[in-house]
Amino acid sequence: MNYYSTPIARLIDEFTKLPGIGRKTAQRLAFHVIRIPLEEAEMLSQAIVEAKASIKYCSICTNLTDKDICNICSDKKRDEGILCIVEDPRDVVAMEKTKEFHGYYHVLHGVISPLEGIGPEEIKIKELLARLTHQEVKEVVLATNPNIEGEATAMYIAKLLKPMGIKVTRIAYGIPVGGDLEYADEITLSKALEGRREL
Amino acid sequence: MNYYSTPIARLIDEFTKLPGIGRKTAQRLAFHVIRIPLEEAEMLSQAIVEAKASIKYCSICTNLTDKDICNICSDKKRDEGILCIVEDPRDVVAMEKTKEFHGYYHVLHGVISPLEGIGPEEIKIKELLARLTHQEVKEVVLATNPNIEGEATAMYIAKLLKPMGIKVTRIAYGIPVGGDLEYADEITLSKALEGRREL
Repeated sequence: MNYYSTPIARLIDEFTKLPGIGRKTAQRLAFHVIRIPLEEAEMLSQAIVEAKASIKYCSICTNLTDKDICNICSDKKRDEGILCIVEDPRDVVAMEKTKEFHGYYHVLHGVISPLEGIGPEEIKIKELLARLTHQEVKEVVLATNPNIEGEATAMYIAKLLKPMGIKVTRIAYGIPVGGDLEYADEITLSKALEGRREL
Repeated sequence: MNYYSTPIARLIDEFTKLPGIGRKTAQRLAFHVIRIPLEEAEMLSQAIVEAKASIKYCSICTNLTDKDICNICSDKKRDEGILCIVEDPRDVVAMEKTKEFHGYYHVLHGVISPLEGIGPEEIKIKELLARLTHQEVKEVVLATNPNIEGEATAMYIAKLLKPMGIKVTRIAYGIPVGGDLEYADEITLSKALEGRREL
C-alpha cells in the first residue's frame, strides 16, 4: 500500500485494527478524517485517549466508569437485595433500557470459556464473592448470554452461591437462544426478566 | 444515552459521526478502544491528528500528500504528455493498481453537481487549467466515475480543453471483466456494443 502517503497509510492501518473495519471501510474513514475540519479530527482523537485514560472499573460492581463508584452503584434508591450479573458493560445498558430492573449489577467482563482459555479466575467472580460477604443480597439474577459459555458461567456461579443461602435465578428464555443480550429489544428483555426462575 | 459514563458516551458520539458508522458499531468500537492497551489507543489517536495535520494538496496534481509535491509528481520517469483526471485520491490508487497508466494525474476532489450546489469553481478545474498553460500535455484521459455527475464533469472539462488543442479521451464503458452479460443493465450493454473493437 505504498500508493498512499505515509500519514494516510498509517491512519488506514490504525483503522483496520478496529473490529469489523476492513481495508475499504478504513480507507473511507481515513479520507473522511482528512476532509473534516481539524477541530473535529482533534475531538475524535481526544475522545479516544480520554476515554481510554479516564475509564476504570467501578470498585463495587466492576462496571466501566470514570468515577470511583459508578452512577448505578451511587444511586441509593435502588434495591440492595437484588443483584444482576452480566457479562459486559453493554449488557448493563441493555438491562437499564427495560426500566424493569431496580437492583444493582455486577459485571463479569467475560464468561468462562475453556476453549479460549478463560477460567473463572479471568472474570470478575472473585469480586462478586467478596462483595456478597458484606452486602445483604437476597437474590442474584444471572443475566449472562443464553449461549453455551453464558449458560456454563451461570451454572458455575449458581453452584458457588447456593450454599451461601442466596436465591439464584436465571433470566428466562425470552431471548432467542444463541442470541446476544446487547441486540435484544426492550420488550423481549423485559419478558425475560419477568419470567426468571429459581435454579 | 446517559446509561454510559461521560467519556464513553463522548467517544461513542464521536465514532457515530464517521461515515457508515451507526450507533451499535460506534459502541462496539468504543468498547474495543477501552479494552486495548493505552499505547494502541494512543497510536490511533495520534494517527488521526497527524494525518489531518500533515496532509495537504500536492502543488502540482492536488492529490493528497504530506510533501509539497506528491510521490507520483516527483517521479521523473513518467510520461509528461499524458494526464489522467480523477475525482478522488482513491481513484489514483485504483488507477495505479492497474500498472497500465504511466502518465501523471490531476485530482478534482469532487464532481460538478448542481443538486448539491457544487459548481466548477468548487472542484480543482482552475488548477488543471493553470497547469496546462505551462505543461506540455498531448492527451487528457477523463476518468471521472461513469454516473451522471462524473459524465457531466467530463463533458465540461472536454469543452474547456478541446479549444486548447489537447486530445481529450474518456475511459471506456463496458461489461466489467468477470461480469455477466445477463446481469448487465441495458445502458452499459449498449455502451459496450457501441465501443466494440476489431480483434
